[in-house]
Amino acid sequence: MNIDLDGILNSKRLAITRALSFVENADELDMSLTDALFQHLGHAYRIGVTGPPGAGKSSLVDGIIEYWRKMDKRVAVISVDPTSPFTGGAILGDRVRMGRHYADKHVFIRSMASRGSHGGLAICTQDAADIFDAAGFDVIIYETVGVGQVELDVANAADTTLVVLVPESGDDIQAMKAGLMEIADIFIINKADRQGANQAFAQIQSMLEMRPVADDVWSPQVIKTNALKAEGISDLMNTLIAHQNFLDKQGIIRRNFKDRIRSKIWNHIEERMSRQFWTTEKQAELNTAVSQDDLSVLVPGKIVENLLS
Amino acid sequence: MNIDLDGILNSKRLAITRALSFVENADELDMSLTDALFQHLGHAYRIGVTGPPGAGKSSLVDGIIEYWRKMDKRVAVISVDPTSPFTGGAILGDRVRMGRHYADKHVFIRSMASRGSHGGLAICTQDAADIFDAAGFDVIIYETVGVGQVELDVANAADTTLVVLVPESGDDIQAMKAGLMEIADIFIINKADRQGANQAFAQIQSMLEMRPVADDVWSPQVIKTNALKAEGISDLMNTLIAHQNFLDKQGIIRRNFKDRIRSKIWNHIEERMSRQFWTTEKQAELNTAVSQDDLSVLVPGKIVENLLS
Repeated sequence: MNIDLDGILNSKRLAITRALSFVENADELDMSLTDALFQHLGHAYRIGVTGPPGAGKSSLVDGIIEYWRKMDKRVAVISVDPTSPFTGGAILGDRVRMGRHYADKHVFIRSMASRGSHGGLAICTQDAADIFDAAGFDVIIYETVGVGQVELDVANAADTTLVVLVPESGDDIQAMKAGLMEIADIFIINKADRQGANQAFAQIQSMLEMRPVADDVWSPQVIKTNALKAEGISDLMNTLIAHQNFLDKQGIIRRNFKDRIRSKIWNHIEERMSRQFWTTEKQAELNTAVSQDDLSVLVPGKIVENLLS
Repeated sequence: MNIDLDGILNSKRLAITRALSFVENADELDMSLTDALFQHLGHAYRIGVTGPPGAGKSSLVDGIIEYWRKMDKRVAVISVDPTSPFTGGAILGDRVRMGRHYADKHVFIRSMASRGSHGGLAICTQDAADIFDAAGFDVIIYETVGVGQVELDVANAADTTLVVLVPESGDDIQAMKAGLMEIADIFIINKADRQGANQAFAQIQSMLEMRPVADDVWSPQVIKTNALKAEGISDLMNTLIAHQNFLDKQGIIRRNFKDRIRSKIWNHIEERMSRQFWTTEKQAELNTAVSQDDLSVLVPGKIVENLLS
């Protein structure tokens, strides 16, 4: 396609929308958008929001958008809908909850569905974020709907990762320990007016206290919110901004930018090698080999060697 | 490692356990287990169970185990715990619920945690299933804890895929339509004593009625169960067996077996090419290129060409 770079840089809605569609449908080997945009990146702050269904992620995101809009920042939301049929039932509700921002031209909310490969979803999200970054959005929020490994990867690829829990999550925190520790920069206990909020808070706190403390390592924070009543949002925002400053000081945002380019190149090369190898002939050779019913011929290791020879 | 093939074929617990650990920790390039086992596969019937957290998957699996044990079939359960911290809180509960089968030496329940690559989780599960298959287990159940794309892939790689919903899922069925239609052979509405069960049932039915009907295509069925009270389990079992017979008649189980070998070979070759390409030198070259701050040098497309030249 023809990428309207000027349109994107000038934040023209049509140019952005077209580029987003290009990303969703793009051939993985097409680097044209990447090459067009990469000189215009690095301005936006990227936040990932993840958590179990029903934790209130969308209401929180809504609160975050509102806060930044008051500071006159432009905000893009990429809501990742995996193909998974189980998305916690929030699909339609989300659109409604964030709906009040739809009319605001400095807020851009986009759902990305991905039917492609797994790496594809994370790459696709990054590309979409790059478009918003180049278009001058100040804040980009990835909200993942769904709770599997891929969704975590998506959220985790942001500069700051928020993990949203509810008071009832308390019982599970022990079991989740390892996974949570790795990904969250900020824990949020949402719906904190419900029973068990203090207990969940204390559990996460005590879990965090076991971490070694160092100047150049962020200490994850725990925040209680009640997003529907807009309670705790300013606490959250202060912590978000503290994390952002920390990242800036440590040069991490720049490093994340470089890391994204690095994985882009890596994935591109892998895909290209794969396509070069799997010619129609090679694929036919594999199919013939596997269709054999004679198990003395159908030795997987032997088939591999034959294909590679 | 030394694979105790005889031990596995004779269903020795220690040999199986060791082989499972081998799979969890194995280098992706090691085909020794695959080559050792492939001649002894194809006997077991593989069932995938997936659904949102709290749908009662474990209780259902418990009911399925019990049914097959009464028919003197040997059953293995592979419970896939992704690294995801959000697993619906069922981790500990599951072990308890299926606990009564732990003492039964013809039931083998194993959790697979996977911290590896995404493809890795599905491959790892298949390898584990192959071990059980070679060890003479009649039925292998993959239960996925978690609801992302990867978890669906795992469940979907089985011969029969069960999607477990609850009456409250009704509202979302419309939104989930496409995804659900693709993966489920049998829908289960569990906790069917709760309000909305008939409505959810009707919704799925009417969704299924829109499908084209053909002799060589399975028509997905909907079953209401209440697993905790063992209600609906025999309905479910009859449908499972009907699906198994259908697969047999169509030669699909054999085809699935071949497909698994095919993807095994494919993935192995991809991994091998990747490692061959990404030598220490190539990785250093990439790192140097990306570390440049001069944006006229740091053009991703150019770096790709340099690495490939």
